[in-house]
Parts: sequence; C-alpha cells; structure tokens
Amino acid sequence: MSKICVGVDIGGTTVKIGIFTTEGEIVRKWEIPTRKEEKGSHILEDVAESVLSITEEEQYKKEDMIGIGIGVPGPVVNEKKVLQCVNLGWENVEVANIMKDLTGIDNIKVGNDANVAALGEMWKGGGEGYHSIVMVTLGTGVGGGIIIDGKILTGSNGAAGEIGHITVNPIEEDACNCGKHGCLEQYASATGIVKETKRALHKTDKNTVLTQAEHISAKTIFDAAKQEDEFAVEMVEHLGYYLGFALGSIAQVVDPEAFVIGGGVSKAGDILVNAIAKYYDKYVMKALKGKEFRLATLGNDAGIYGSAKLILD
Amino acid sequence: MSKICVGVDIGGTTVKIGIFTTEGEIVRKWEIPTRKEEKGSHILEDVAESVLSITEEEQYKKEDMIGIGIGVPGPVVNEKKVLQCVNLGWENVEVANIMKDLTGIDNIKVGNDANVAALGEMWKGGGEGYHSIVMVTLGTGVGGGIIIDGKILTGSNGAAGEIGHITVNPIEEDACNCGKHGCLEQYASATGIVKETKRALHKTDKNTVLTQAEHISAKTIFDAAKQEDEFAVEMVEHLGYYLGFALGSIAQVVDPEAFVIGGGVSKAGDILVNAIAKYYDKYVMKALKGKEFRLATLGNDAGIYGSAKLILD
Repeated sequence: MSKICVGVDIGGTTVKIGIFTTEGEIVRKWEIPTRKEEKGSHILEDVAESVLSITEEEQYKKEDMIGIGIGVPGPVVNEKKVLQCVNLGWENVEVANIMKDLTGIDNIKVGNDANVAALGEMWKGGGEGYHSIVMVTLGTGVGGGIIIDGKILTGSNGAAGEIGHITVNPIEEDACNCGKHGCLEQYASATGIVKETKRALHKTDKNTVLTQAEHISAKTIFDAAKQEDEFAVEMVEHLGYYLGFALGSIAQVVDPEAFVIGGGVSKAGDILVNAIAKYYDKYVMKALKGKEFRLATLGNDAGIYGSAKLILD
Repeated sequence: MSKICVGVDIGGTTVKIGIFTTEGEIVRKWEIPTRKEEKGSHILEDVAESVLSITEEEQYKKEDMIGIGIGVPGPVVNEKKVLQCVNLGWENVEVANIMKDLTGIDNIKVGNDANVAALGEMWKGGGEGYHSIVMVTLGTGVGGGIIIDGKILTGSNGAAGEIGHITVNPIEEDACNCGKHGCLEQYASATGIVKETKRALHKTDKNTVLTQAEHISAKTIFDAAKQEDEFAVEMVEHLGYYLGFALGSIAQVVDPEAFVIGGGVSKAGDILVNAIAKYYDKYVMKALKGKEFRLATLGNDAGIYGSAKLILD
C-alpha cells in the first residue's frame, strides 16, 4: 500500500479532513463538527481520534502515514504554534506538540488557514503550474495567502498576507471590523459589496433593477451587471477599482506570477476578474502589467489540499 | 591565510568593490570608474581585471576566493542574469557566466542593487540582528529591498520590492517618471519632497523661513522643521503620511520584523523616522503596530556588503 498523509482544516463550525497519497491523490475526505466548548480544548482530541479511526478503517498502518498538516484560523509561528484563534477560543496553542502526543505521529505541520488554502490552490487548484501566487479570498471577509517559490510567506508575527486590511481609502469615515478605516475588506467582502451598493443606491438617480430587489446580495449585483444594468456595472467597477488598487500595491511588493481569486464572491467569474485586471494595470509599473488572474477551483477543499502539501514539501 | 569573497556594486558612475573574509570582516575596499561606452560591454572586463589584480596584490591565491557577489542596477533572475540596466546600456546580460569566464571563479551570484543593499544592511548595518526586513532607500528616487528569513525576495520578474512605485495618491495629476500617477517616489524622494514643498509654498499663507531660502533641498526643509518652522513641520508630516501609508500596506503583505530607512534623505534622522512611524501605525492592523524603524548605517557600502553576503549564505 502506498504511503499517505493527512490534511486537516479546522474551521469555526466544522473540521475538514482528507487522506492523500504521497503522489497527491485524494483517497477520502470527511468532516467532523468543531467542538468549541471549554475554550475549544477538545477539538484536537476529536481530530486525532477521527484521523486514527478512519485511517485504520481504510486499512492504513501507522507507519504508512508520513505526517499530518493542519490549517487553523489564526496566526501561526514556526509551523507549530498558533497565537490566537478567536473563533475557536484558543490562545497560544502548541498545535503540533499536542497532535504529536495524541497521535504518535512525529511529523505535524501547522499553517494559517488562508495561507494553507493558497498553498492548496497553487498545488492542485487555480494556481496549478505556478510557484509564486497571491491568493485573495472574497468571502464574509477578505483573506489572503502568499506563496513564494512554493512556500507560504508567514511573516514575523504570522500576519503576512493579511491583505483584507490594506488601506485602500484613507478618507473612509466608517470603521472596519479591525478598527481601522478604509480597509479593502470594507469594499470587497460579500458584505462590503452590498453595503457599498446600498450606500450608492441612496445617491443615484439611475434606473436600476436593484431598487426593486427584495434582498440585495453580491450575487444580485453581479447578475444585474451581467444584464448590463448601468448602476450595477458601476458598482462592479467600484469593486474592481479597490481590488485592482490593492493587488497593484501587493505586486509592487512581491511580484507574484499570478493572482488567484477565491471565496463566495468569486463565483461571479469573468466579470469580476476583468474588472480587477483593468484597474490593476493602472496601478503597477510596466514590468508588472498583464499578470495572470485565475479563479480558485478547489472551493472549501483548498484547506485540506494545502495542509497535506505542508507535509509533502 | 583565511578564505575570502568579493562584493561588487556596479553603479552608473563608479563600481565599488570590497574584499571580505568568510567571517564577514572587510579587508579592503576600492572603486573603479564605470566604463559605459559601447553599451557598457567593458564594465565586467574592468571589474574582473581589478578584482584579480587587487586580490593578487593582497597576496590571496585564487583558491582562497570562494566567490564573487555582484549588485547591478536592474532586475535580476536566478541570481545570474540581468534583464535590463538602463544606466549601463545593458540588455539581457548573463553577468554570472561572463564573470565566471573572465575570472575562472565558479561561484558568482548576482543581485539587484537595491535588494543587495538591503541584504547588506540586514547583515552588518541598521538591520543587524533581524532576518526579515524591508529597506527603503530615499534618494533621487525611492528604492526598496525586501529580505525574508535572510534571503532576498526577488519576485517572478525581479520586480519585488519596487516600493517607490506603489500608488499612494490615486488622484495625483502629475505623472511619475514611470508613467503612472501618484507613486510614492513622487512624494518621498529627495526631488519629490522639494517639489511638494514648492507646490505647497504657493498656496500657504504661513510665515516660513523657506520663502526666503535661496535654494530649497530636502535638508533645508528638515532643518527648518527641526527649528519648529510650522510650514516645514507640515511638509515633514505630509512626507510621513505617504511613507507611513505605503509601509503600512507593505507590512500587511510581508509582515517584516523591522524597516530600515536609508538614502540621502534619511540623514534627517529621528524627525523623519518619527513622522513615518506615526502614520504607519494608523494604516496597519493591531498585530503589525509598533514595528521597529531603523536608520541605515552602511551608506554607499551597503551594496558591497550585501553582494559579499550573497556568497557567504
């Protein structure tokens, strides 16, 4: 039987787990609930138990498993320890050591969930074929992960790639969840897009289908723009401007081969990518123009792929 | 006799060269003119000849030399080849291979001059003790170099760390030398600071010593600000805002341990660093606040130190 590794992605509601061969093929994937009671102190026990019982069920021996990679929703140092996971109730958790004790597996590596998802997309997703990418996840918030020469850029406090909190509008009066003003997340998250659209609706005298919409979501806005609703098209441009501006600054810093756009908002597809690319080119020097913009393809599985890749590197 | 390596820094006017022991002590440093005629085709010959004759004069044998590091003013790929050096007349020059042929030394490594200077400052200058720094050089232009875990961040086209062309003011009407509008370099280079000050002088009704100044330079502005000239203080704040804004975005991307500020403008000292740090903290999330800001200490020698370090790594 071939050797395997396990990729784990710990989220606020569920933990996703996958078994991969060392050639990178997924063998089985499943989920368990995230038990957040008692400051999340049982989460790693649950993960260890589930990993050991399912690998046994699949008839792998312990010596077949070369390691376990774990993505966690917080800043990670030395691929071992997470400083804080607000969603899980964790503070300074020695994830690698604890999992080693619980499973008897020596090779445990830990990464931040957004970074690990970026690694997964580079390996088997929208960034396949590249070695240096910037991944942008447009969901409830705006997350990011930066991969340089195949490795996660972690940063000295685990805060590299926190691109949702790049300031893109220094004169914004509303505050971001982080306390700053004018963060990318305020304009480019699913909630931000809707908020900006509602703000603009109050001021516009354009006829738009969005005035009649019962409920405005990022999807209704993109759908209207695809139908050439003039106001909705303006809102997509507005979003493209902020994302293009931020990704332009990022390119001036790290010069990646490509950008990969993921998260729920990225379901809008080409209309989104084209809006970003248009403004991006305005904000970068000549050598950086014309970068590739790809859509993410792994969806919620990016994390388990990337966690497994931590072990296979 | 101990082993040595050589650091070379090729500039538009002079080539700086240094001999270093493998322990990192500088043995001797000197300069030769940069011969730019015939598309700079004699520059590397001159460097090779000078390196060989001076090392011989110092009584080192060829087998004592473990390698030559070379900094060049253009984008470098694979530590070997430079794509373009406008100042030297170079296009696609295989610097490493040519120097290998000219000197018989196998271990030749090439880096971009700004990146190599950053490496030098991390090794023996203002960034000593750190492993991940962002260096900002405020001179005629604004250059940058990013070091992550002791290694230069090059980027996929050798354009990483080109932070002088991060857009910091998207509504700027004047164009930067690069063709874009509102680049950091337009506000934070020595020429940019003077230009902004002259622009503001036309509009202010404040009394300022700068109205009487025969010639306004970055130095006269900082000197006036140190004397608490209200208008000059405002101009320093204006500069601090743009630099703080840009360095904030950079920190959100790479999360360095520290920033090192160099170039002629950095002679202003603490007044400059304090202005940058004040605005920087406004534009970063909590985990990134309070980073160290250091002044560069190696001056024009940063390049030879960093080039030598390319070999010693």
